[in-house]
Amino acid sequence: MKKTVGTHLIIDAWQASPALLNDPEWIRETLIQAVEAGGATLIDLCVHQFSPHGVTATATLAESHIAIHTWPEYGYFAADCFFCGEGDPVKAMKMICKALQAKEIRTREIKRGFDPKIEQREFMPQIIEGT
Amino acid sequence: MKKTVGTHLIIDAWQASPALLNDPEWIRETLIQAVEAGGATLIDLCVHQFSPHGVTATATLAESHIAIHTWPEYGYFAADCFFCGEGDPVKAMKMICKALQAKEIRTREIKRGFDPKIEQREFMPQIIEGT
Repeated sequence: MKKTVGTHLIIDAWQASPALLNDPEWIRETLIQAVEAGGATLIDLCVHQFSPHGVTATATLAESHIAIHTWPEYGYFAADCFFCGEGDPVKAMKMICKALQAKEIRTREIKRGFDPKIEQREFMPQIIEGT
Repeated sequence: MKKTVGTHLIIDAWQASPALLNDPEWIRETLIQAVEAGGATLIDLCVHQFSPHGVTATATLAESHIAIHTWPEYGYFAADCFFCGEGDPVKAMKMICKALQAKEIRTREIKRGFDPKIEQREFMPQIIEGT
């Protein structure tokens, strides 16, 4: 079976609010809203504040995950939104960037799953038989 | 200030062991070993088993995160290892691929952080306006 299982957005954002980037409760709320905006289902959420600054948060989703890592001292954050099946990672991405007031954003979209070039090698029947 | 904050490995792996891909305890142990192999520090680990099959696990690290999502029915998993500062994401990646017996692996390396070329483009205000 050949298919793409999901879309993974890799987001680098600059000129965001240093105060918000260093606020774990704001990050927590932002991720919850991003999950909702993307139409995804939250399984678990971990938010961690670093010393002297910076926040990391990972949202485990039924659709895969959202993660964010912030550098308030640079006004920068790195996020990624990996959605499989239902849901829209672009909406989640926009919610995060808006909530953290990023003014420069670079988003790279990566399709995850099966690579036609790889699939031509006919390796999948072996896998199915092995299940 | 311009700098690269870390390396993000995007891993698509095929022909892995369906049984191991569907074993949450094996996935948990694999991630713990991957964190150790990569010289990283684990903050939190979430492992979730889906019905009828598939496992998702996210490891929140002091260095960023490792995430894995498995499709046992395809012998496929998607993983990513994002390491900032110390540590070696390649070692973590190799540990995961070996533990899950993947025979075909595609890894893309993405440098995260500041990109001088992007900073000159000033294209992001459009996205912010579009939210």
